[in-house]
Amino acid sequence: MSPDYDRIEEDALRTLDVLCRQPSVSAEGRALEATAELVQEMLAGAGFETRQLRADAGAPAVYGEQRGAGDFTLLLYNHYDVQPVDPLDLWESPPFEPTQRDEKLFARGTSDNKGELAVRLAVIRALRDDGGLPINVRWIVEGEEEIGSPNFDEIVRRNTELLRADGSLWEGGSARLPDGRPELALGFKGILAVRLDLRTLATDAHSSLAEIAPGAGWRLVEALESIRDPSGDVRIRGFYDAAREPTAAEQQALAEASPSEEGEWLETLGISQFAGGLTGAALLERASYRPTANIAGIQTGYNGPGIKTVLPGAASAWLDFRLVPDQRPGDVLELLRAHLEREGFGDVVVTELASCPPAVTPIDDPFVQRVVRVADAVSGTRSSLLPLSAPTLPIVASFQQHLGVPGLAAPDNPTYAGSRAHAPNEHIRLEDVGPAVRFTYALLQDLAGV
Amino acid sequence: MSPDYDRIEEDALRTLDVLCRQPSVSAEGRALEATAELVQEMLAGAGFETRQLRADAGAPAVYGEQRGAGDFTLLLYNHYDVQPVDPLDLWESPPFEPTQRDEKLFARGTSDNKGELAVRLAVIRALRDDGGLPINVRWIVEGEEEIGSPNFDEIVRRNTELLRADGSLWEGGSARLPDGRPELALGFKGILAVRLDLRTLATDAHSSLAEIAPGAGWRLVEALESIRDPSGDVRIRGFYDAAREPTAAEQQALAEASPSEEGEWLETLGISQFAGGLTGAALLERASYRPTANIAGIQTGYNGPGIKTVLPGAASAWLDFRLVPDQRPGDVLELLRAHLEREGFGDVVVTELASCPPAVTPIDDPFVQRVVRVADAVSGTRSSLLPLSAPTLPIVASFQQHLGVPGLAAPDNPTYAGSRAHAPNEHIRLEDVGPAVRFTYALLQDLAGV
Repeated sequence: MSPDYDRIEEDALRTLDVLCRQPSVSAEGRALEATAELVQEMLAGAGFETRQLRADAGAPAVYGEQRGAGDFTLLLYNHYDVQPVDPLDLWESPPFEPTQRDEKLFARGTSDNKGELAVRLAVIRALRDDGGLPINVRWIVEGEEEIGSPNFDEIVRRNTELLRADGSLWEGGSARLPDGRPELALGFKGILAVRLDLRTLATDAHSSLAEIAPGAGWRLVEALESIRDPSGDVRIRGFYDAAREPTAAEQQALAEASPSEEGEWLETLGISQFAGGLTGAALLERASYRPTANIAGIQTGYNGPGIKTVLPGAASAWLDFRLVPDQRPGDVLELLRAHLEREGFGDVVVTELASCPPAVTPIDDPFVQRVVRVADAVSGTRSSLLPLSAPTLPIVASFQQHLGVPGLAAPDNPTYAGSRAHAPNEHIRLEDVGPAVRFTYALLQDLAGV
Repeated sequence: MSPDYDRIEEDALRTLDVLCRQPSVSAEGRALEATAELVQEMLAGAGFETRQLRADAGAPAVYGEQRGAGDFTLLLYNHYDVQPVDPLDLWESPPFEPTQRDEKLFARGTSDNKGELAVRLAVIRALRDDGGLPINVRWIVEGEEEIGSPNFDEIVRRNTELLRADGSLWEGGSARLPDGRPELALGFKGILAVRLDLRTLATDAHSSLAEIAPGAGWRLVEALESIRDPSGDVRIRGFYDAAREPTAAEQQALAEASPSEEGEWLETLGISQFAGGLTGAALLERASYRPTANIAGIQTGYNGPGIKTVLPGAASAWLDFRLVPDQRPGDVLELLRAHLEREGFGDVVVTELASCPPAVTPIDDPFVQRVVRVADAVSGTRSSLLPLSAPTLPIVASFQQHLGVPGLAAPDNPTYAGSRAHAPNEHIRLEDVGPAVRFTYALLQDLAGV
């Protein structure tokens, strides 16, 4: 008997509505314990033996375990925390009041990452109602992903026995690209996030002194300008040395990957073309295999209405570097410090805010191949495979290092390029819930045959 | 009979205490009407016929007129408004509760510019008590100097008959430099203040897109870097063309000017030397006769604790250019716009925030010479003359253009280089009140002989 997919979708959306009413903003420490308890309650209700896992600090992770019929053990990862909602005035409906309009569901967390959590939960509840889980499922739902999972590595290290598995599904890819293909991602860039602070004067001063005393604004501009040239090339000596080229198999995957989300991205970003006019595989290769140096923020001096003619004595910049195999965050930090020293900016204080190495599962891994076959079969298309994705998912490195479990981002996530994750008016399209549900249901059944 | 200077000083400090209890922050529109009324009351109490002068908008200026024995009419200028007090936590005593410690008086406005207002008022009250004013005095005290005197030019234009005079004293110089010499200033740089706004993306995006989509942070850094090179030279084509060299008389004044405040400034700024290691006349010439391009502020992306890995879609910078004779703000604005266009930054929106031309009184003006002689005589030294000062005093251009009255910044201001005007812990040294009082008393008597 075919499962009642409509009922599962409805169940997922009902669950998602409840989850999205929790303002679980990890950057602000909001509602994290309450949301953890809610998620734990939901997992218990779906038949999991649950507990909370904690590091010495930080929000708890929720853990659940449920035995199934087969031998295969699948490890699921999600996070219940979300990004801050500012600027609030750009939201067309309140971010923590899920609102349907235009066949979309708007709320902070719908796309990143409560939607996927709800889909998985609804599918597992349905499989249980249909006679029990076909495989063993272990599930960890953390509460600090949006602040860089600072305590997740410690939680994994302390709980390797609980988390051991034959395959893992990370936070997911897209259930359905514009051309109908599902998207799978096999790895993520690493990251090094730093703050640069410099001080040129003991105090902000009157701007009439600008010709004879050093302003922090100009000095920061000059320090930043030394780091990247206008073409986008990073000027830090040795920065690219450890960045390996994509393998032949990875290049082939890029060539066969779907380019069909480009239009969505361009529209969301409000730009007419990507850097260098790139499209297709060349664009993907640049997005995936080129490490970045991004200015996430700059602040100096007066930023209010009108003018204040001040010569700023201090300035700060927030940078993040997205790293590719085989770059290592610690090495890049040293290269950055050496660069600033060499370029005459030894007074710039570099503070590490977060770091995570890049991590990938090889394309030819048997678990990967099995998931791809299911995705192909359910969608009736050829899956789009991203061997390396541009974002960072710190948990992947922890899973690889401490559990040695292969994994990927699967198309069980009802999100799309226009979802505005991390931005105002985050949403999912209702039409993407069905494909995510069907894939997840099929995969759990399929893995019983391993 | 010699005047009782001690009593005048005490009177000035008592008046200053009352004035500084008014939080007359023009940038915040605080207590402006109340402070105008207080100043009007004080002028009336000192024998002035008073009224308020207004433009179509803005805080009122207080006007007072008092006839004296001689024919000479002196026009005084002060302002009753002050700078904002933030960051408040850096103040060692509340900014609007005048506090004496270490032979200094701390409060916002003590140095800029209520101290001079109090000195002038106390001297005029004393002269009145001693038999009446020796000359005619007209006095205008505005309430918007710290926001660039946006309405003062209109007030002067509308009231040229009330304001006509034979000489004017602007907001003052220093009563006593570290070497004991008084400081006079004969002109001020102009200013052009602008905000640069640019947008690269319709919305802030996830920083993983940094390699394929343009971030506003980098673009702003590149646009700013195009404006000034690290040596301090402005790269805007034609920027220096209208900047004239100092005349022989001006160069001589610079050479004879006191360098003795340099130590105070270095200590206040917390730096070991000025730009290029300059000192003395060379430093003064650079500070006075080189126009500046200052970054007063930059803001883009995330500026909070920890990290937010955002690719900013918008960025802003606040710049001010201090202009020397014969640069004109409107011309510089056009040059800036043309520069950005030429350098490929035509997308940067330039908004003018404030502008004022430079304005100077020639050294050989008879009124200047007379004031210098009085300052020399009272101090028993040779006055230090600044033919062009680095700050901007918009009222000077209005006085020149609409009244044609010669003027200068006289040593009737009890302030010094360490006064922290515009910064936390603004103060005056009590020892500087006496010299300011004695000079002012002598000048008003001397001008009766013109």
